[in-house]
Amino acid sequence: MKLSPPGHSFVSDNVAGAHPVILDALARANAGDAIPYGGDPWTERAVASIRDLLDARDAEVLFTYGGTGANVAALQSALAPFEAIICTATAHINADECGALERFTGAKLIDVATPDGKLTPELVAPLLKPTNGEHNVQPAVIAISQATELGTVYSPDEIRALADLAHANGLFLFLDGARIANAAAHLGCALANMTTHTGVDLLTFGGTKNGMLYGEAMVVLNPVLARRARFARKQYGQLASKMRFISAQFNALLTDDLWLHNARHANSMATRLATALADIPQVEVLHPPAANSVFAVLPTEAVAPLQEWSPFLTWGTNPGMVRWMTSFTTTERDVDRFVAGIRFVTR
Amino acid sequence: MKLSPPGHSFVSDNVAGAHPVILDALARANAGDAIPYGGDPWTERAVASIRDLLDARDAEVLFTYGGTGANVAALQSALAPFEAIICTATAHINADECGALERFTGAKLIDVATPDGKLTPELVAPLLKPTNGEHNVQPAVIAISQATELGTVYSPDEIRALADLAHANGLFLFLDGARIANAAAHLGCALANMTTHTGVDLLTFGGTKNGMLYGEAMVVLNPVLARRARFARKQYGQLASKMRFISAQFNALLTDDLWLHNARHANSMATRLATALADIPQVEVLHPPAANSVFAVLPTEAVAPLQEWSPFLTWGTNPGMVRWMTSFTTTERDVDRFVAGIRFVTR
Amino acid sequence: MKLSPPGHSFVSDNVAGAHPVILDALARANAGDAIPYGGDPWTERAVASIRDLLDARDAEVLFTYGGTGANVAALQSALAPFEAIICTATAHINADECGALERFTGAKLIDVATPDGKLTPELVAPLLKPTNGEHNVQPAVIAISQATELGTVYSPDEIRALADLAHANGLFLFLDGARIANAAAHLGCALANMTTHTGVDLLTFGGTKNGMLYGEAMVVLNPVLARRARFARKQYGQLASKMRFISAQFNALLTDDLWLHNARHANSMATRLATALADIPQVEVLHPPAANSVFAVLPTEAVAPLQEWSPFLTWGTNPGMVRWMTSFTTTERDVDRFVAGIRFVTR
Amino acid sequence: MKLSPPGHSFVSDNVAGAHPVILDALARANAGDAIPYGGDPWTERAVASIRDLLDARDAEVLFTYGGTGANVAALQSALAPFEAIICTATAHINADECGALERFTGAKLIDVATPDGKLTPELVAPLLKPTNGEHNVQPAVIAISQATELGTVYSPDEIRALADLAHANGLFLFLDGARIANAAAHLGCALANMTTHTGVDLLTFGGTKNGMLYGEAMVVLNPVLARRARFARKQYGQLASKMRFISAQFNALLTDDLWLHNARHANSMATRLATALADIPQVEVLHPPAANSVFAVLPTEAVAPLQEWSPFLTWGTNPGMVRWMTSFTTTERDVDRFVAGIRFVTR
Repeated sequence: MKLSPPGHSFVSDNVAGAHPVILDALARANAGDAIPYGGDPWTERAVASIRDLLDARDAEVLFTYGGTGANVAALQSALAPFEAIICTATAHINADECGALERFTGAKLIDVATPDGKLTPELVAPLLKPTNGEHNVQPAVIAISQATELGTVYSPDEIRALADLAHANGLFLFLDGARIANAAAHLGCALANMTTHTGVDLLTFGGTKNGMLYGEAMVVLNPVLARRARFARKQYGQLASKMRFISAQFNALLTDDLWLHNARHANSMATRLATALADIPQVEVLHPPAANSVFAVLPTEAVAPLQEWSPFLTWGTNPGMVRWMTSFTTTERDVDRFVAGIRFVTR
Repeated sequence: MKLSPPGHSFVSDNVAGAHPVILDALARANAGDAIPYGGDPWTERAVASIRDLLDARDAEVLFTYGGTGANVAALQSALAPFEAIICTATAHINADECGALERFTGAKLIDVATPDGKLTPELVAPLLKPTNGEHNVQPAVIAISQATELGTVYSPDEIRALADLAHANGLFLFLDGARIANAAAHLGCALANMTTHTGVDLLTFGGTKNGMLYGEAMVVLNPVLARRARFARKQYGQLASKMRFISAQFNALLTDDLWLHNARHANSMATRLATALADIPQVEVLHPPAANSVFAVLPTEAVAPLQEWSPFLTWGTNPGMVRWMTSFTTTERDVDRFVAGIRFVTR
Repeated sequence: MKLSPPGHSFVSDNVAGAHPVILDALARANAGDAIPYGGDPWTERAVASIRDLLDARDAEVLFTYGGTGANVAALQSALAPFEAIICTATAHINADECGALERFTGAKLIDVATPDGKLTPELVAPLLKPTNGEHNVQPAVIAISQATELGTVYSPDEIRALADLAHANGLFLFLDGARIANAAAHLGCALANMTTHTGVDLLTFGGTKNGMLYGEAMVVLNPVLARRARFARKQYGQLASKMRFISAQFNALLTDDLWLHNARHANSMATRLATALADIPQVEVLHPPAANSVFAVLPTEAVAPLQEWSPFLTWGTNPGMVRWMTSFTTTERDVDRFVAGIRFVTR
Repeated sequence: MKLSPPGHSFVSDNVAGAHPVILDALARANAGDAIPYGGDPWTERAVASIRDLLDARDAEVLFTYGGTGANVAALQSALAPFEAIICTATAHINADECGALERFTGAKLIDVATPDGKLTPELVAPLLKPTNGEHNVQPAVIAISQATELGTVYSPDEIRALADLAHANGLFLFLDGARIANAAAHLGCALANMTTHTGVDLLTFGGTKNGMLYGEAMVVLNPVLARRARFARKQYGQLASKMRFISAQFNALLTDDLWLHNARHANSMATRLATALADIPQVEVLHPPAANSVFAVLPTEAVAPLQEWSPFLTWGTNPGMVRWMTSFTTTERDVDRFVAGIRFVTR
């Protein structure tokens, strides 16, 4: 093939590096001593910014190194060990964290098959009432991802419906926000309007996939759950000693809506990709992209040559199904070149 | 007090920021896509460097975000849940990790009181043979810190004696190397000569306290223990997606012996501090500094005013006992100013 | 209704008391001192009997108080915490043990929907190879129940096929034998021929549902797994101090094939029940009983009145689906009266 | 030696069998069907009796198979996984349960050396306030044994002082009552006066060592802690299906003060033994027996011959220190013969 592959691949949003503004912020934060473990002014400011963004003045906002760390420590704050989490089968906590949640919390994951990665009250309601007392685990948390692992996005009303169902049954609603920025960019609504104001009890706010080197936030909106969060973070090995370097990245990300610009850009690249594929009949795009991924079905024999030219992941058990992800670094030229490649292998 | 306080305090070696060379390395690593989770060339190079340094060609070298993460995941690789770890009462894993080890591994810590933070065969031997079968936890690991939490350093022979004792009894020897560079700088011996060649089975190699922003390494020297390490790291939430940013820091730290220069400097600042205190009779330095800390006893009434002027930690139950730590950022001027302050409050 | 309800209900095989011969054995074992925790002659004899029965001279045979205890401690012997168990969705370990397995072992249960409570190589094979390295839990055990929770029974060839699949992939095969006697009675084959000689690695052998007051056995057939079993039993709180009272019950149960007679009787009562229902068109028996239960579908409106007259459990989400269990205490008269009741409510 | 050894040894109170009245109760409970898992009339009556005895009408009383089970499940009800239990170094939960507590609850045991197996406010108070936030485990429970593992007994005032200290600091007081009957017999006070009315929050009530075949009770007096207890019991594998057989034993034990008579007898045999040793100068009895054990120091060379003649355990690291335990089955003749043997080997 004479075509040159895109400079940025479509493997995942974590193949990207860091945004230059984030790197600058690290350099600027490297000034003198700072109280370790979060007692520094960068952390104070970053916590305040996230509270503002979520319209949640009293939220417990704790930074962690990574996404599994944020998910596990946040959920630990809401779970007793005989309880259970209801989630989709494709949820990151269920499929991609090596059983960390079961291991650390002792809780069971009750996973639900879904076509689009989204839970609904109809799917969840039948699971809420175990009939056999202490012989059964007790559902305590409904866990959703926003955006989902399948690139779909819940509307605020859909989240509210799940929160209402959870609360009516004594459960909590957790939102895995590793790609919350992409969801916000898609919905065009204030972040608080899809979290705090819909009844979400706990969430994570992702930094790594959206331009940071490392660093996520776990946010406890429901004050009933706040007490344990700090200890859960430490016990799960997620309390950074030089915390200022996570906080400084968040400060940069939250300044001038960089988090939103990065996400909007990534989303628009996915849309550009999906749109360009419309006239390739051999490629079926599964649904119009909401966030920063395109799920598509290719002729099976086209997958390997295309991957060899520019790597990406297949998805699920259908060998022709693929996932293409964009990030804040993806360029229009990357998309156009990749489309040319797809066109080439499917011609 | 008219004296101006030191620019760098003596609270801990983690109040320091990052070494400029490390920051530069981050910027240089921010180039294009990289395979996530460690499949990148920075990681390949950093792993090779650590293997060289340890003279351990087949060692499993895995990077983690933090020190608790490295300790817990490494030890998990060597422990069944009915087993136990023998360590000092002051060990970081026993005193400062919020029970993470018990929580994650299920194992019990058998902690031994020591005057100097060091285990000896004499202290350990009586604990090795539980007499009551399955009613007792089974010691499986001897855990030491090098340098210790009390600023002391094991000689290679002392480590070898503990390794021999461990192996003769079917146990493993673990070395918490959060400050392994400071120990190496003190001993003036090749790192391999106090680890691989003394019989250490697992260790951690600290980056954060020695000039990095974040990042530690867990190293499995004993191949019997290697299989589980990778899974333990992931399950404990320590597998960084953008791994290149940890590895690039290690590459910088290991180039031109920066790790050793940083540690030597920190150690020499502790020595300078201890030496300068020799003629202040009200201050008793507990032992000549081996690594980057000075433990001393002050007149109790001098502690608070001194802390107010320049912060540091007291230590243990004696209200006059203090810990002063130096780092790669501590300057001679910092030490001299701090000594002047001590002289002032104890005059 | 003028009909008198059966003396023994069809709720479960654990509503029955103990067999008189078992009670006599307890009284006879109450003679003088005995070394606690299993160092007594009753235990020595019971272990030998089970080894004989299983044709497994070197098997590690450990008695436990209860069935959840035997399952959890046995499986713990075969699992690292990042591993997973493949089982049916209806497996007792998945559905009825309050998450004990996840909690105690840290492992994940990968549960498979089955129509008849039985795993097959076709169902299991696609789950054996996680594609995503340490991001995924690693299947380590295939777990089956014999008889199953749905009253079906694996043939020895079916078990062998699963054992072969397990071993070819580096996994172990576990058999939950809470009702192993009922399966043996159905198959009419030597117990060893459906366990040791098919390649089962670990199993439990139930006593409580088959005439004992309490007491189960966990048996480790694969010597690779034996070392941890004893510790797992103790740590999970299943090591009886006055062990002789469990062992003496097993000795009685294993004498003159009482275990098999009890199970045969229970099975035959289930067959009698199913056969008698054949001419009631409103009642659909789901499959000819293999063990000691009958699963049937009734007209929904008949369920509550029948339960009020003689209690039993409904099953699953179909409100007309019921489970009727027989035990060693069920009499022909009990069955006939119960059939009369069913006839009455469905007439 | 021509002397014939005692019929009942002094190894432990769990070498004894069961009291005949208890065995009779089992036979009487073997009548027809019973609702499993505690929904039977025997359990209802036993729960009511224990509530009466403890003067605690609303206590959650749950029966378990064994003592480790009762301790672990009860303590689980009161603990978050980042918390800690303060206990003596000799506590059964610390020394004899194979790390079950750490494993199951995740909590850390902070063990205190004591000469007599008893905690005091003076010993506990310095441990209550961790100084270093989330880096430290948070003490949540003070755990005592009554009688202690060293045969000593707390007075009600001593318990109240610990309860007051616990409550003033937001902790709970747990009482391991494996030998609570022996303590009550020694104190001669109503059970409620050393438990409910002193402020104990949770306790266990032992049956096995006092004449039952198996069976203990866990009692949650503090209603704040009751919710989790039932699930903790099930998850830890301690929920007996044929519960009536535990409850029937408790009913017999609690009828006509059999529990107290058994314990008084065991205690009096220990006193008889200690008294008879008073004129053997080579034997030093460590303290006058309060419960059913005698701790003594013998000439080292006398220990092995005496053990060979009639077995018992040595204790701790002093090779001449021994523990002799009595039970409800020990006779005056057993004691007299044993004394003759001691006299013989030390003559």
